[in-house]
Amino acid sequence: MNVTVRGRTQSCRTVAFDRARNAVRLIEQRLLPHEFKIVATRNFRETAAAIHDMIVRGAPAIAATAAYGLAQGALAFRGRDRRKFSRHIETVYQTLKAARPTAVDPVNAMNGVRAAMRTGRTVAEQQSLALAAAEEFASEDVRHCEEIGRHGAKLIRSGMKILTHCNAGWLACVDVGSATAPMYAAQAQGKKFHVFCDETRPRSQGATLTAWELAQQRISHQVIADNAAGHLMQRGEIDLVIVGSDRTLGRTGEVANKIGTYTKAVLAKRHGIPFYVAIPLSTIDWHLKRGFDIPIEERHESEVLGAWGVQERLKAEGKRLKGGKRIYVRVGNPASGARNPGFDVTPPELITGIITPVGIFKPQELWRRRRELGFGG
Amino acid sequence: MNVTVRGRTQSCRTVAFDRARNAVRLIEQRLLPHEFKIVATRNFRETAAAIHDMIVRGAPAIAATAAYGLAQGALAFRGRDRRKFSRHIETVYQTLKAARPTAVDPVNAMNGVRAAMRTGRTVAEQQSLALAAAEEFASEDVRHCEEIGRHGAKLIRSGMKILTHCNAGWLACVDVGSATAPMYAAQAQGKKFHVFCDETRPRSQGATLTAWELAQQRISHQVIADNAAGHLMQRGEIDLVIVGSDRTLGRTGEVANKIGTYTKAVLAKRHGIPFYVAIPLSTIDWHLKRGFDIPIEERHESEVLGAWGVQERLKAEGKRLKGGKRIYVRVGNPASGARNPGFDVTPPELITGIITPVGIFKPQELWRRRRELGFGG
Repeated sequence: MNVTVRGRTQSCRTVAFDRARNAVRLIEQRLLPHEFKIVATRNFRETAAAIHDMIVRGAPAIAATAAYGLAQGALAFRGRDRRKFSRHIETVYQTLKAARPTAVDPVNAMNGVRAAMRTGRTVAEQQSLALAAAEEFASEDVRHCEEIGRHGAKLIRSGMKILTHCNAGWLACVDVGSATAPMYAAQAQGKKFHVFCDETRPRSQGATLTAWELAQQRISHQVIADNAAGHLMQRGEIDLVIVGSDRTLGRTGEVANKIGTYTKAVLAKRHGIPFYVAIPLSTIDWHLKRGFDIPIEERHESEVLGAWGVQERLKAEGKRLKGGKRIYVRVGNPASGARNPGFDVTPPELITGIITPVGIFKPQELWRRRRELGFGG
Repeated sequence: MNVTVRGRTQSCRTVAFDRARNAVRLIEQRLLPHEFKIVATRNFRETAAAIHDMIVRGAPAIAATAAYGLAQGALAFRGRDRRKFSRHIETVYQTLKAARPTAVDPVNAMNGVRAAMRTGRTVAEQQSLALAAAEEFASEDVRHCEEIGRHGAKLIRSGMKILTHCNAGWLACVDVGSATAPMYAAQAQGKKFHVFCDETRPRSQGATLTAWELAQQRISHQVIADNAAGHLMQRGEIDLVIVGSDRTLGRTGEVANKIGTYTKAVLAKRHGIPFYVAIPLSTIDWHLKRGFDIPIEERHESEVLGAWGVQERLKAEGKRLKGGKRIYVRVGNPASGARNPGFDVTPPELITGIITPVGIFKPQELWRRRRELGFGG
């Protein structure tokens, strides 16, 4: 997507590869929305660290980063010894896999790259196949997001007010995004609409990342407290909800996504508002048999008890003093603890449809139509 | 309630009167939970400023503050001229009324004090009647909260997990609180239970005030993001919800309260979890005919786009560096705006019962039983 920084507009992907420098180029997402910066990792260990330290986040984005990281590691190998090369690749693979151990997407992406490499006979051939496979993985992710946009844009009419939760935008993918893809496609078709971004406590990805993305693309939007969606729905101010997913169960149609998604689905059902989930095919888990078995990560209580931001003083003249580093402030009572589940699971009866690259499906029909969705082909 | 600061325990009301100094003593709530401090206003103008600047907040608490402020103003009058005294009282009344113009509770409380003063013949008599009436108003608020506790405690069994939203605690009243009253009463009866405090964005009264209160009373509790209640209900981790109210319509049983209350009521209904609202009688509005007509304050967007807290650094050894002043940090995208409705309205079909000082009522029967509730008696 296009990014405008200090008046200069550039086209930019969340994840890209610099062949000349054998580097993975990433948007430093921990600085957003306060600063826009591209970082380049110089070797596969730095790439693994970038995943671990959350410079890049979002399942499709870290999958592409891991695929590029594997190619980067392969290309750095000097020599012709295939057995040494093979051992080196195993080290690269395990290092990248360990960077975010609970995520399945990077593993799937790297397995694809390794499968492609096996067709090469020499080290040089395998190196070049690795990069081609990583590039193809990234390109396919972009194409899939564009297809999600094409299908999802049909749901958006001019004048609509759309609610989204967390960030399932282009910053979570290689480009375009999942939940945001229908918005960008509808905008390209000339439709005018307004987006409410749930701030998405405790990590505030809605207020920071989604709001930044929509501002960059000049889509009309406002941030709301997570508490406000119910009231806005009650007053008829929300027409459509689109969210992403971290894992969607192909067998049951249950959707795991950022904590708070389930609440919005319950509210949407009560108010008869369509509730859609936009996902690339890699998000579908065809194995797990019930949503209750999806492990729900319990995160550190400091996220709930405080907030990260940039200190801002309002001068007498009303001018803002900006800049400075992001700092952590303790908001809550210092003597109190917190519970901090990171995700929740939304049952299929609350979901109007699942927007995929190959069309929009009822959550209950994913399993019956699994061949169209690329499973068990 | 008891407050323990640096090892010393003292009994403390949110609002009290110091006869010797003719001062209103208030807990400086803007400093909580980071600092506990009592401030004394030296004259009625300082008392009005304390209401305006939100040193004290919560409908019953500001009502008692205004009543004391009126008595304080009366007692400061020097002389015997009843007409001059009457003009002075009118100034005091208008100054205190203007401090929080949308609130009805301070006006009702001050009208009660003025009515009591009218039975006095001399200035001195009226001064003494004013103070007696203000003291009686504060004492009645405490008695009413204790009665709410007595009725509400029956709903709490040992082992229960209770959800509350925002702060309807003793900091919002003269003492004891409304939503917290059943908890304090149940604790006094030896019952053991756990409370989840919604952090209550954007102003975080749950994480700051309610968590502080419960910690002071040694009630087991944890703060949760507003997004997490749905997930906890889904997993069977919440047995009971008790919230307060800013205005409850006697004619319809609709409950206006802090933004996000409606969402929790919708979730509780879906999961068959009892949802109670605890209110003093002064919270009932017997006039308004529909909840849609309750004005919903739209507050400043900076509340949603940032947070107030104390900067905290985690040293390498894991020790916290504490202290310092509360500062505002910008969390969200600087180029984005926000919507910030302060309250929402919950319909009676989502409410299991209204806990009042005179018993627990179905929201739909408030009007039929209005005489018991002190209206039109």
